[in-house]
Amino acid sequence: MPEVAGVRVATAACGIKYKGRTDLCLIAFDAGSTIAGVLTRSKTASAPVEWCRAQLPRGRVRAIVVNSGNANAFTGKAGSASVDRIVAATARRLGCRLGDVFVASTGVIGEALPDGLVVDGLAGLADGLQPAQWKAAADAIMTTDTFPKGASRLTEIGGKPVTLCGIAKGSGMIAPDMATMLAFVATDARLPAGVLQSLLKKSADRSFNSITVDGDTSTSDTLMLAASGKAKHPKIETASDSRLASFKAALDGLLCDLAQQVVRDGEGASKFVTITVTGAASPNAARRIGLAIGNSPLVKTAIAGEDPNWGRVVMAVGKSGERADRDRLAIRIGGVAVAEAGEVVPGYDEAPVGAHMKGSEIDIHVDVGIGRGKARVWTCDLTHGYISINADYRS
Amino acid sequence: MPEVAGVRVATAACGIKYKGRTDLCLIAFDAGSTIAGVLTRSKTASAPVEWCRAQLPRGRVRAIVVNSGNANAFTGKAGSASVDRIVAATARRLGCRLGDVFVASTGVIGEALPDGLVVDGLAGLADGLQPAQWKAAADAIMTTDTFPKGASRLTEIGGKPVTLCGIAKGSGMIAPDMATMLAFVATDARLPAGVLQSLLKKSADRSFNSITVDGDTSTSDTLMLAASGKAKHPKIETASDSRLASFKAALDGLLCDLAQQVVRDGEGASKFVTITVTGAASPNAARRIGLAIGNSPLVKTAIAGEDPNWGRVVMAVGKSGERADRDRLAIRIGGVAVAEAGEVVPGYDEAPVGAHMKGSEIDIHVDVGIGRGKARVWTCDLTHGYISINADYRS
Repeated sequence: MPEVAGVRVATAACGIKYKGRTDLCLIAFDAGSTIAGVLTRSKTASAPVEWCRAQLPRGRVRAIVVNSGNANAFTGKAGSASVDRIVAATARRLGCRLGDVFVASTGVIGEALPDGLVVDGLAGLADGLQPAQWKAAADAIMTTDTFPKGASRLTEIGGKPVTLCGIAKGSGMIAPDMATMLAFVATDARLPAGVLQSLLKKSADRSFNSITVDGDTSTSDTLMLAASGKAKHPKIETASDSRLASFKAALDGLLCDLAQQVVRDGEGASKFVTITVTGAASPNAARRIGLAIGNSPLVKTAIAGEDPNWGRVVMAVGKSGERADRDRLAIRIGGVAVAEAGEVVPGYDEAPVGAHMKGSEIDIHVDVGIGRGKARVWTCDLTHGYISINADYRS
Repeated sequence: MPEVAGVRVATAACGIKYKGRTDLCLIAFDAGSTIAGVLTRSKTASAPVEWCRAQLPRGRVRAIVVNSGNANAFTGKAGSASVDRIVAATARRLGCRLGDVFVASTGVIGEALPDGLVVDGLAGLADGLQPAQWKAAADAIMTTDTFPKGASRLTEIGGKPVTLCGIAKGSGMIAPDMATMLAFVATDARLPAGVLQSLLKKSADRSFNSITVDGDTSTSDTLMLAASGKAKHPKIETASDSRLASFKAALDGLLCDLAQQVVRDGEGASKFVTITVTGAASPNAARRIGLAIGNSPLVKTAIAGEDPNWGRVVMAVGKSGERADRDRLAIRIGGVAVAEAGEVVPGYDEAPVGAHMKGSEIDIHVDVGIGRGKARVWTCDLTHGYISINADYRS
C-alpha cells in the first residue's frame, strides 16, 4: 500500500493484553488535515466513541490513536478519564490541540483500560512515525481477526492524482468480547470536513452498513476518513461537485473492499454471500430486506448446510417489515430462477442450484416486484465454527 | 386436560408427509361460538393465514382444521384453491357456513398441499368427534417438536366455573422448513368476539410475542382463542368488565405456559432463559430491549458456553434502539449484582454467577434505570444443536 502525503504511522507493543505483538497504533496527520466519522448507533457506546462524537463537528485532525486488547467500554467515569489522559499525552507529543486527537479502543469490555501503558507506548511512537506503515497499523489493531485488512486506491480530482489508503479490523459486527469493527481511511485529498462527512456517510451505507455477520452491534464501531490536503487538485467546496466523481467511486470501492474483508473473516464463516435485492419500494427498503435475509439464522444455517432452501429467503423477506407482495416475489440462486410470481418455477431443477451452494461464493437475488429500489448486502454463513468461537470462549 | 363444553376434537392420519402418525386435527365448536385470532405479521403470509385474516372480523367459528407436514405457503393460486376445497368440505360435513371454518397448515413450504388427502381425512373425522381429545390434537399438529404441548386452566367469571384448554406446536419461531408456531385455545366462556379479540391481543403480547428462539418469523404463525358460550356466567359485554379479572389471569397463565413450552423445545436448546427488564421508558421499550437481548447470537452463545458475559448484555441493550443510559444500567445474573451505574460492581466475584450459568434455568435481570417500564421475555441458548438441526437438514 502506497504512502499518503501528509500522513505518517507508527506502532508499538504495550502489553495491554496480548504478548509478543503490537497493540498500539498512532496515525499522525500534518497540520490542516480534516476528518469525518461514522460511529456506532449503540446507546451504550464506549468512552472513546463519546470523545470522537464530541470532536467530529470541528472536523480537524492531527492524530488517531488506536489500541487493541481493551475496548474501554462500560468502564464508567474511569473510562472517560483514561481517554482524557491518552488524548493529553498525544496532544503534548504532537504539539496539537486536544480536539485534534481521535481515539479508538477494541478488545475486552468492562475492564479498566491500563492507560499508563498506552501513554508510555506513545512516548516512543511520536519519534518513530513513518509513511506507508499500513500493514503494521492493520496488524496492531487486530483482535480475533485471522488476517490484517487493508486496501488502497489511486484516483484523481480535477485531473490531479489522489491516493486513498484504509485499514480495518473486525470479524463479526462484533466479535468475542466486543472486538468491534474499526476502519480508518487516509487520503491526501484537500476537502473540507463537511464534504468528507457527506461522502463518508453515503459510502458507509453502501459498504460497512451493508454487511452483517451476526446482526450484533458493537459499543465501539468506528469508521473515520481523514484528508491531509497535500494533493494539488483544485479547491472543492461541495460534495455535489462533479469533479469528485472518481474520488467517490474510489472511496466506495475501497470501503466495500474493507467491509467485504471483514465479512470474509466472519467468525466461523465458510461461505461469502452476496445478497442482491431489486424491485423494492426504495433503496433503503431494499437494504433492510437484504439485511433481514443476511441476518436470518435460518437462511445462514441453510447456506452452511449447502441447502438451496429458498423458503427461508421468502420467510426473511416477509419478516423484514418492508412492503412485499408474496405473489410477485422472484428468487434466483447462483443465477438460476428458483421461484417466480409467488411459486416455485415450473419444472424447477435443484441440481445446478445445489452445485452453486457447494461453492464458497454464494449469490442470492431477490426481486420484490413492486418498485425500483435496489441494494446489495454481504454476509457469511452461520456454522458450528461460530458457536465454537463464541460459546467456548471465556472472557 | 379436561373437556370444554361445546367443543369436540378428532384426529386422523392422512399421509400428507409423515408415515405412521396423525397429521390432521379437527376442532369443532357448537353453534354460537365466537373466535379471536392473532396472526403472523409476515408480508409473505401463507394461504391459510390469508383465509383466517379475512374471516376473523365476523368472529364466528364452527371448526378449526389443522394439518401438519405441509405449510401451504408460497404456493400461489393453487394454495388458495386448496384452502377453498378444505373449507368447503368441512362446512359441508358440519353443516355450517364457509366463513365459520378456520384453517392452519404447518410443514414444508413451496410444495402444493395434497388437499385431496385432507378432504378424504375429513370424511371420517366428522363422525369421530369427541370431547377432551387434547393430547391427540397436540400430537397431530407437531412437526419438528420433540414433545406435544398443552395446558389448561379452571377459572371463573362472575362466580361461575369456566374452563380453558390450549394446545401449541413450534420449536423455533420458525422451525426447519417453516414448521411454524401454532396455538389454539378453547373455552366454554360466553364472550363476544370483540371481547375475546381484546383479551387475546393483550395476552399474546405478554406470552407468544415475548418469546424468541431465533428471531425468525414464520409465514404461518397463528394463535386462536374460541369460546363455545356454554358456561353459565352472567353476560359480559366489554373487555374492561371487572368480572373478567380471573379469566384474564387464567388466559395469561395458559398462554405463557404454552409459549414457554415452545421455548423449552427450541431447536438445540439446552437452557431456558428468563430475561426481566425493568426501569425502561415504557413496557414496550422494555419488551424490545428484552427481545434484543434474547435474539442476540452473542448473548445466546455465551449462555450456551455457560459464560456470564455481561458485556454482551450491555451490547444488546445498546443495539435495541431504545432509550438507555450506559451509566445507569444495572445487570443481575442469577440474582447476583454484576454491573451497576455503568461499571462492574466493586469486588465482583464471578464464582456464584458462574455456578448459576451451569444450571438449566438462567435468569438475567436488566434495570435500565430511566423509567418504570417492565417486561419479561423468554428464550433459549444458541448451540451446536441448532446448527446441526438447521444446517444439516435438507428440504
